[in-house]
Amino acid sequence: MRVEGGGHGGRLLPSPVSRLLPVTKGVAVLGSTGSIGTTALRVLARHPSRFHVAALTSNANATLLAEQVRATGAPFAGLVSGQGSVPETWCLGPDALVQAAQLPDADIVLNAVVGAAGLDATLAALRAGKRVALANKETLVVAGELVSLAARENGGEIVPVDSEHSAILQCLAGRPDAQVRRLILTASGGPFRDWNRQQLAHATLADALRHPTWQMGRKITVDSATLANKALEVIEAHFLFGVPYDAIDVVVHPQSVVHSLVEFVDSSVLAQLGAPSMELPVLYALTHPERVPEPAIPPFDPVAASPLTFERVRLDDFPALRMGIEAGRAGGAAPAVFNAANEQAVALFLDGALSFVGIPRAIGSALERLGGLPGGSREALLEADSAARRHVSTLFQSGSPDSRFPIPDSRQ
Amino acid sequence: MRVEGGGHGGRLLPSPVSRLLPVTKGVAVLGSTGSIGTTALRVLARHPSRFHVAALTSNANATLLAEQVRATGAPFAGLVSGQGSVPETWCLGPDALVQAAQLPDADIVLNAVVGAAGLDATLAALRAGKRVALANKETLVVAGELVSLAARENGGEIVPVDSEHSAILQCLAGRPDAQVRRLILTASGGPFRDWNRQQLAHATLADALRHPTWQMGRKITVDSATLANKALEVIEAHFLFGVPYDAIDVVVHPQSVVHSLVEFVDSSVLAQLGAPSMELPVLYALTHPERVPEPAIPPFDPVAASPLTFERVRLDDFPALRMGIEAGRAGGAAPAVFNAANEQAVALFLDGALSFVGIPRAIGSALERLGGLPGGSREALLEADSAARRHVSTLFQSGSPDSRFPIPDSRQ
Repeated sequence: MRVEGGGHGGRLLPSPVSRLLPVTKGVAVLGSTGSIGTTALRVLARHPSRFHVAALTSNANATLLAEQVRATGAPFAGLVSGQGSVPETWCLGPDALVQAAQLPDADIVLNAVVGAAGLDATLAALRAGKRVALANKETLVVAGELVSLAARENGGEIVPVDSEHSAILQCLAGRPDAQVRRLILTASGGPFRDWNRQQLAHATLADALRHPTWQMGRKITVDSATLANKALEVIEAHFLFGVPYDAIDVVVHPQSVVHSLVEFVDSSVLAQLGAPSMELPVLYALTHPERVPEPAIPPFDPVAASPLTFERVRLDDFPALRMGIEAGRAGGAAPAVFNAANEQAVALFLDGALSFVGIPRAIGSALERLGGLPGGSREALLEADSAARRHVSTLFQSGSPDSRFPIPDSRQ
Repeated sequence: MRVEGGGHGGRLLPSPVSRLLPVTKGVAVLGSTGSIGTTALRVLARHPSRFHVAALTSNANATLLAEQVRATGAPFAGLVSGQGSVPETWCLGPDALVQAAQLPDADIVLNAVVGAAGLDATLAALRAGKRVALANKETLVVAGELVSLAARENGGEIVPVDSEHSAILQCLAGRPDAQVRRLILTASGGPFRDWNRQQLAHATLADALRHPTWQMGRKITVDSATLANKALEVIEAHFLFGVPYDAIDVVVHPQSVVHSLVEFVDSSVLAQLGAPSMELPVLYALTHPERVPEPAIPPFDPVAASPLTFERVRLDDFPALRMGIEAGRAGGAAPAVFNAANEQAVALFLDGALSFVGIPRAIGSALERLGGLPGGSREALLEADSAARRHVSTLFQSGSPDSRFPIPDSRQ
């Protein structure tokens, strides 16, 4: 028996006692085979009385997806770009994301897709009045105004999964915007926090993937090394919380224990703390503003976590951060260009075809050429996105990045 | 023109434009010449559009009180135990506190009286349905159940001024009790944080008054050195937030920047941070749950405050903390006995008549003899309070403290 009712329905058990049991919420996990996705399934499995898995989608990992479908009993499975023999009932191709996001049984859509590819699913879920638990920050960066509008107009709701934004949401606790003076996003500083420019010029892929505190996917790990990730988060925070860029600061906090801070107009500061694990932000995005008992997440021990340190961010040595924030301020298609150029440059870097310092240079080149493009519509933004990707690819194919940004010999 | 209306009135300006101006709230400052009181007047002076001073009382500092009355235009002044020539309009004697607390123009009673002497004023204000901004933690320790009952039955409200409890209130932000797993009170550790037992045995008054982070009155500064203050705060937190003693922890945090933390059932932790200044907790106790812009309090700078460290509390070397918490658990008159014995022992210590390590021993002796007394009524609690003070005095007069707890030669 299934109760279908848009964002507020849920699933009852097919038994005579169903009316005595609480209704569980259906969760569609987009990107279920990635780092956030597998974390989410682990969290969901611990709370069967509150949630059930309504859908799973993977980009290309059919094997793990099949296992997850068996383990969760998910009634919908989607494979975006995989090949080979898969069950007939699976939904194949890029449209699988939007289909999963629109399922009536999916009360919550956990969007853990990597990159701008997650945009349409976010829009579809918000337009259906659902809660989007958003790990796919790129969709807010590419189309922050469109996504915010879709939420407002249709009763949809965006709840962040990023640990920094989850922290801010928890510190805000529904307080009015007028009480907020400043958001302070923490950044671990990544693997190159204490590398100087000379060292950065020789950073390898292996170096970049060696994140000191967080276990994450490869793309976001590289973004954490360039600090492009923090720029994406600043733009995300701007749209999620309606705070102007001048009131969003970044501070380096190597221990990744203070997940972010909010300064209020009376100079009081609240912070959210916890071990660097995505389990809590994932769970909280599902339960907000409620909290559910979760003994499996180790309690925070301030003594064990001591000392907590904070450093100024080195904007000159990590230019991707400054360029990203400037793109956010510029508005229009600039954030989309920043994001797409970064995605393309990181893909090249992961392929060993671009040096680490080449990433921000490729972004800068794309912004210089395309940063003035207009935003406004999904089509205009996706056009800017494509143009930026082409620009970075062409830059590379023409040999420019190689010559201007030599790849260190020691790269992996 | 004065609008009189119990807890919800306020003062209008005596002019034709009065109806266009916001109504300001009247604040009675009890203990206005002390450390918290003078801080409060500084804060109130910065927010004349929101607050006016409805009353001022001092224990014995007639000179400063007269100055404060002139500066604030307070229509009521009370002097509890001072002598000499004072203006005829002043209210003299212990009853001044209760009178000030009951003034119709006093919407908020800031109780910054030191010690159990503040109890009746707190009860009177709560019974009149007012907000009590409570810096006088001893009243909650002596009579936590009575005070809580008085608030519940009459629509009164207790908002803490202690920085630790203000931090917890801000972290809770109105969340339901069921979301809270644990309160973590921070303690600076006081001047003797890293002193061993041998060193503590020779601690002088001058040593005890040398607090590393907070500028406070003498009594609370000594309480911070023995950690008796933290015991009072644990009991205060128990009554303010309805959290069992097992769910209240203390952690040493020498920088006094993280003012306290709340752990929620999902293992998320929120903390409130700021410079060690009482201006914010005083202001917040007046405005809660609102916040008002306060540019005069320097914004928190995490980099300047770095590093933040946390240590386990040394219960064996600071027995006053453990005894206080045990008194809280025991209930009845035990917390009142703990508090009174501590007040009396600290007074003797400040007079140079008792050694530092004599303070917890005097408390232990009083609890052993009187800790089983019943609580229940104000009279029973005040009787226990008196008995404990007598016990400590007698202990001293009989020479016991001198012989059992020798005073170091080097004391001030």
